[in-house]
Amino acid sequence: MNYYINKEKDLPLQEVFPGITGHLVHTEHCTIADFRIAAGTKLPLHHHPHEQTSTVLEGRFLFEVDDQERICEAGEVAVIPGNVPHRGTALTDCRIMDIFSPVREDYKLI
Amino acid sequence: MNYYINKEKDLPLQEVFPGITGHLVHTEHCTIADFRIAAGTKLPLHHHPHEQTSTVLEGRFLFEVDDQERICEAGEVAVIPGNVPHRGTALTDCRIMDIFSPVREDYKLI
Repeated sequence: MNYYINKEKDLPLQEVFPGITGHLVHTEHCTIADFRIAAGTKLPLHHHPHEQTSTVLEGRFLFEVDDQERICEAGEVAVIPGNVPHRGTALTDCRIMDIFSPVREDYKLI
Repeated sequence: MNYYINKEKDLPLQEVFPGITGHLVHTEHCTIADFRIAAGTKLPLHHHPHEQTSTVLEGRFLFEVDDQERICEAGEVAVIPGNVPHRGTALTDCRIMDIFSPVREDYKLI
């Protein structure tokens, strides 16, 4: 087993939604995604059984989680429990680390 | 329930080991830590049942996981399964996002 990953060299760049591209690390319990999101990208209302924790590293992203909306910037986090509907809009180019648990099997490449 | 966290305003700054300080977000399944590690900090060999995924955001950190060592920089990740012994040394000041699953109950403040 190799314990180390260089994201650029070892992982494919995946576009999971138009405008949302990143490297995804799948562990036993989590999927850890380092996403770049193009300004103007609108993610429609959706939900999934996985919890999602979104840490904004760069940019400004408008989150709408259930009935709460907030513009998050670097240093802010959205904690979205499983099955809670959410959507969002990238107000600028963004870099967001999304942690999902359990693993997003639907994001694994075949 | 409030879905949003501003790490500086809403969370205490915790020193989990001398030289390792950060904000910790605990969700249902994970603990997500945004650590600053002072250059020269040496974390002794240890292990825990939680898986740990360490994403280096800034700096250079020497990881030693089981029998594999590597100096990781921005864009590199160490994936440490539960119970695998590991230690490390901060070669420079570092910023590392550590994702643990399950939750690090021992890092929760009483």
